[in-house]
Amino acid sequence: MLPQRSIWLHPKSPDIVQIVDQRPLPHQLAIADLTTVDEATIAIKDMWVRGAPLIGATAAYGVYFAVKEARTASNPAEFFSQKIDQLLASRPTAVNLAWAVNRQLEAILGIEDWGKKAEIAFDTANQIVEEDVAQCHQIGVHGLALIEDCYKKTGKPVQVLTHCNAGRMACVAWGTATSPIYQAHAAGIPVHVWVDETRPRNQGARITAWELAQAGIPHTVIVDNAGGHLMQHGMVDLCLVGSDRTTLTGDVANKIGTYLKALAAHDNDVPFYVALPSTTIDFTLKDGLKEIPIEKRAESEVTKIQGWTGESLEQVLLTPKDSPAANYAFDVTPARLVTGLITERGICDASEAGIRGLFPDLG
Amino acid sequence: MLPQRSIWLHPKSPDIVQIVDQRPLPHQLAIADLTTVDEATIAIKDMWVRGAPLIGATAAYGVYFAVKEARTASNPAEFFSQKIDQLLASRPTAVNLAWAVNRQLEAILGIEDWGKKAEIAFDTANQIVEEDVAQCHQIGVHGLALIEDCYKKTGKPVQVLTHCNAGRMACVAWGTATSPIYQAHAAGIPVHVWVDETRPRNQGARITAWELAQAGIPHTVIVDNAGGHLMQHGMVDLCLVGSDRTTLTGDVANKIGTYLKALAAHDNDVPFYVALPSTTIDFTLKDGLKEIPIEKRAESEVTKIQGWTGESLEQVLLTPKDSPAANYAFDVTPARLVTGLITERGICDASEAGIRGLFPDLG
Repeated sequence: MLPQRSIWLHPKSPDIVQIVDQRPLPHQLAIADLTTVDEATIAIKDMWVRGAPLIGATAAYGVYFAVKEARTASNPAEFFSQKIDQLLASRPTAVNLAWAVNRQLEAILGIEDWGKKAEIAFDTANQIVEEDVAQCHQIGVHGLALIEDCYKKTGKPVQVLTHCNAGRMACVAWGTATSPIYQAHAAGIPVHVWVDETRPRNQGARITAWELAQAGIPHTVIVDNAGGHLMQHGMVDLCLVGSDRTTLTGDVANKIGTYLKALAAHDNDVPFYVALPSTTIDFTLKDGLKEIPIEKRAESEVTKIQGWTGESLEQVLLTPKDSPAANYAFDVTPARLVTGLITERGICDASEAGIRGLFPDLG
Repeated sequence: MLPQRSIWLHPKSPDIVQIVDQRPLPHQLAIADLTTVDEATIAIKDMWVRGAPLIGATAAYGVYFAVKEARTASNPAEFFSQKIDQLLASRPTAVNLAWAVNRQLEAILGIEDWGKKAEIAFDTANQIVEEDVAQCHQIGVHGLALIEDCYKKTGKPVQVLTHCNAGRMACVAWGTATSPIYQAHAAGIPVHVWVDETRPRNQGARITAWELAQAGIPHTVIVDNAGGHLMQHGMVDLCLVGSDRTTLTGDVANKIGTYLKALAAHDNDVPFYVALPSTTIDFTLKDGLKEIPIEKRAESEVTKIQGWTGESLEQVLLTPKDSPAANYAFDVTPARLVTGLITERGICDASEAGIRGLFPDLG
């Protein structure tokens, strides 16, 4: 069974949230059940799920579980508050986590009865999921125009480069950066995707390539070092990436290495677009480099790698046993290197004016 | 036994050239014997040895073997010519290969006797090796001044970022980019090296980290995606890389991904120096992007990776089984992004004037 979404309710029991455990992809397709706030926290922290929108959706169900569990705690309010803090601390960079948790907190604000709170939190989580699907679809509609324009100009398959996974496994469905690609493919526009493997966790090589293969979209996996060479030689028409947090001024925190690709795009006049639902915009921030916290993860993600031996998944050591490693998970691409932001409401400049223009009602 | 050099004559038999087989590093230290031109060709082509200067040295011994073997061939001249072509075709990007082969051909030019030719070729190969050691030492002397200047300014450990392996395993000894680092360390200047892992073949994580660990020099392995983030945050004082081929105008072909680091250095005012012996300068070229052939290697270097399971070396698959990959081994960094070239005769601008100024007698 290939799940159409990355997160869904168990068909026979809406108290169970099911996810694709993304860690063994593409070698094994594993479905995991989440039934408690602790399980939701672990799924986010240990990256069973990842991608800003999906982190938000998972956290929303996490809040629902926390409410449910609070009902039977000796001190419900204290229990709930502690679990919310735990959820919020699970990943620092993506703003959707805090956004989804805050939306839940607002939704249940002022409600006294924990049973009623649970109902509201459940409905809100489902709403967040459905809104993400709709937003990502709309991002695709707007981004499709860019791919179409390229195709009209050259008459050749449109060469898109993407970094990490901003696909349906980063969201609920469609993806952000991949949504225009899926929709172009469906519209019969030939498109080929250069997939950055995206070390250290290889979300590109493992997940984006897998998604594109499932959809029958031509693609080629490359190492993260290769994109500059491709752009120097006119082999990329368009860069499309996602965002984990976007400042009001258009700076974009995304998977480590995104900044390097933006520099290469800028140096070679390749348009560099960031696709994002408005949920990744942090309207409180104006300087991404100074203000966005960059998660530092375990060294072992750099020193070791997991792959398929032909029979099983195995981790192998890549470095000398005494050499230390550092593992910064994200970097910030300054707005000056971003050609435009593709949002659910259209494409805008990576600037406060651009963002305020599309989202005067938010922030 | 830790070999002090990457290539040397067997202590008991000068007819055997010994190398470190670099493929299982850092997990296993394997010494291989080369005794024929075919073995030398395979060692270069399959990257038992790599790095422009070491490829040159190995090719020089390859020519010596070809001469020796020609003596007993039915048509010595035809045999020799075919083996030379085979050697020249083993790797396309590094110019040292052609340089070393041509130097050998010039050395034996006009000599009729194959026995005499063999003597000359043997001596020339040994000379090439000794010259490389001396040149790399001098590169270190000149580069040391840059590290010293940094230390004088900040009083803090000098943070150097390097890409791939331009160390002693890329040369005969000292290395190019690492020579200033070894000499700074020996002079008591505190230095810390950010080591790009350098996918796909991980020469940084495997070989540079191993060399630095052997020398007791503080270092940290990072993924290739991380350097931009470090430079944005003032965590790199100096980039030091090697070169596989340098145009007369100062464009530098080096391991894929070098260009991305040069862009990040430029964007953050971090000095970006390329360390190279004059043997990597191709005086016939003026436009690196258009004129330097970029080797395309096997997809399997991208789709699979080798590591240590704890008991043995194993290759694991990283990508979906039907996803294609592309593997460009080098890219070209335009001279405009290079702060300076560190050569055996001093530091010069990455320009024709700079190169002609230091090497009026060459090219």
